[in-house]
Amino acid sequence: MDTSDTTPSRRKFLQQTGLAGAGLALAAPLQLFANTNETTTNQIMYDMTKNIKTRGYAAKDNSGKLSPWEFERRAVGDNDILIDIKYASICHSDIHQMKGDWGKQPYPQVPGHEIAGIVAAVGKNVTKFKVGDRAGVGCMVDSCMTCESCTHGEEHFCDHGATVNTYGSPDKTSPSGITQGGYATNIVVRDHFAVHIPAHISLQEAAPLLCAGITTYSPLVNANFKIGDKVGVAGIGGLGHLAVKLAVSKGAEVYAFTTSADKVKDILGFGAKEVIVVDDAAKFKPYKKKLDYMISTIPAQFDLASYASVVKPGGHFTQVGMPVGFELTLNNLGLASTRVNFNASLIGGIPQTQEVVHYCADNKIVPQIQIIKASEINDTWVKVLNKQARYRYVIDAATF
Amino acid sequence: MDTSDTTPSRRKFLQQTGLAGAGLALAAPLQLFANTNETTTNQIMYDMTKNIKTRGYAAKDNSGKLSPWEFERRAVGDNDILIDIKYASICHSDIHQMKGDWGKQPYPQVPGHEIAGIVAAVGKNVTKFKVGDRAGVGCMVDSCMTCESCTHGEEHFCDHGATVNTYGSPDKTSPSGITQGGYATNIVVRDHFAVHIPAHISLQEAAPLLCAGITTYSPLVNANFKIGDKVGVAGIGGLGHLAVKLAVSKGAEVYAFTTSADKVKDILGFGAKEVIVVDDAAKFKPYKKKLDYMISTIPAQFDLASYASVVKPGGHFTQVGMPVGFELTLNNLGLASTRVNFNASLIGGIPQTQEVVHYCADNKIVPQIQIIKASEINDTWVKVLNKQARYRYVIDAATF
Repeated sequence: MDTSDTTPSRRKFLQQTGLAGAGLALAAPLQLFANTNETTTNQIMYDMTKNIKTRGYAAKDNSGKLSPWEFERRAVGDNDILIDIKYASICHSDIHQMKGDWGKQPYPQVPGHEIAGIVAAVGKNVTKFKVGDRAGVGCMVDSCMTCESCTHGEEHFCDHGATVNTYGSPDKTSPSGITQGGYATNIVVRDHFAVHIPAHISLQEAAPLLCAGITTYSPLVNANFKIGDKVGVAGIGGLGHLAVKLAVSKGAEVYAFTTSADKVKDILGFGAKEVIVVDDAAKFKPYKKKLDYMISTIPAQFDLASYASVVKPGGHFTQVGMPVGFELTLNNLGLASTRVNFNASLIGGIPQTQEVVHYCADNKIVPQIQIIKASEINDTWVKVLNKQARYRYVIDAATF
Repeated sequence: MDTSDTTPSRRKFLQQTGLAGAGLALAAPLQLFANTNETTTNQIMYDMTKNIKTRGYAAKDNSGKLSPWEFERRAVGDNDILIDIKYASICHSDIHQMKGDWGKQPYPQVPGHEIAGIVAAVGKNVTKFKVGDRAGVGCMVDSCMTCESCTHGEEHFCDHGATVNTYGSPDKTSPSGITQGGYATNIVVRDHFAVHIPAHISLQEAAPLLCAGITTYSPLVNANFKIGDKVGVAGIGGLGHLAVKLAVSKGAEVYAFTTSADKVKDILGFGAKEVIVVDDAAKFKPYKKKLDYMISTIPAQFDLASYASVVKPGGHFTQVGMPVGFELTLNNLGLASTRVNFNASLIGGIPQTQEVVHYCADNKIVPQIQIIKASEINDTWVKVLNKQARYRYVIDAATF
């Protein structure tokens, strides 16, 4: 590496004219990054030595309310990309964390880990992306990248405990001292932790795949069920409705368990064979020991043993919803009676995150979304808590 | 079947002279049942139409204290056997249940579900046992016997929910209205729910196998580990010390996790390769992801995710200890990080209970026991709660 080649102006030129090498016609400098099917809001030349200004919505305390905030991202490093965010969707986790449900938080903190946008600048070492690429960011933005887990595509299980969450993690490179999420106009992220979003899926429909998609896809794939197997999905919200679609797409006969009677028609439309409205523990009885596998997205305390009772003895049950404090209290006697293996799952690694985006694009599996403006976030969070989401709210980042 | 043959005197005669058919020499009537290597305390002729008088120790309230109680068992029915109890051992579950830790209890209630003795009478339909046989009773005394689970040797998972626990279950046939356990001089039990105790294991050493033995044997066998696999055992008390011995016997390299530093020498003596004294969460680190399987006998809330962290991702972890309220609160995020499958296990079915008794007798696997008198039960319970058991207390039923 020629370490003498480090003056800002030269680096900036080289990085930004990297487009030429990608075969794109050079235009006037200010239009340099407009060669995409989405327009960028930041069609500017970036000074790679300076922090990046951004606008977003941040929690200032644990009230569960967000308000506008102007802040800075770190300068685009040699291995970083800058993404001009187009859409960020709302995950129940955003609300849990901002309210301190999972531990005391530093504020201001910008939530958002379902992020889709356009690459607006790339660091000098970056080959994975070029300016103008469509890119997504999920729940993590860095890890050690050297341990066995990281080198095997399981960066979320970094053996050195160095996984950095997209928001709220201590981060010396961040001007605010912590990582700040995607409810904002842009994000700077290490290239490895962004994934490509192919042209045949819209950015607004791709955004929820970065958390809700991978979180359900990973355990469903790992469960290795066979075509025709009976798969249960418990909790049909943002994650659950994608789990239904994904499991159907993989050939499962899907049994959806919801507490919202008014979702039944929708869920049948997603391809479920049966929808069970759980308004009484007796509702589980006809399904006792019938299912081959079950995934629960319920982000709150629930009666695990009753839900697990529908799985065949020896079968597996995966919990992906994260309750308050991450704590789940189970009845050990009840679980013993089911003879079901319980496990919990977190998102997925970067290779699998890329895989789910491609899989969904290729198989036309998209979340059912509602686009909202930034000013609607607070009201929308209340709707999420009230189980009114149908099924994922996506913030139009142009409104920040 | 000749249903006319039902007069008490004729039935009594036929049942009690069943011994002759077994090739035993008839002696004077009062010595009729003395043809064993153990003497019986009740060498009497039973009137099969009358309730059986017994003496035992019962909880009269939830104080955790027992006191002497004279009560009656049901008359020996056509499918029943009467066992003259020789030894009953003390399980932590006895204490949990009598104190109401698992729900409000009816009193007086006699605990005890690790019972060994001599068959003193058999009902007219009984072919499984004859008078003088050595027999044991564990945690259940009846079930529907017709459902798929019961007919497949899993009576503890009776699909009709008709499993009757050895003590504290509603029981119309019991003069006291509930089943009464083994801290007593005798017990009447449906023949199917008693197992044979072979001659090459002492009754006092066999007693703990009826719960502690089967409870650890069943998941260890079901885990299907290979010779040389690394098996963890957490909680080295009555159950755990048997789990160590059983896993070693089955060819595992055993890692024992205990909070009692003074047990280390004993546990190495049981065959464990290493003993980890868990006085700090850091103690788990050197073993992270190293074990193929783990069983926990800890009968209280504990940090599941830390213990599970020593199991290889994708491995299984079985919880057999039953905490207060059967409730176990786990950190779902922590469990997700381990990628371990968690399950709970209850005892085992009758065929497997018989199997563990034979396996232990054949392989000279016996619990480390201390014999106590009935009058010492209350003090002994305190010792159990204070983790002073080394490792199973067995009550000499002659002292009731």
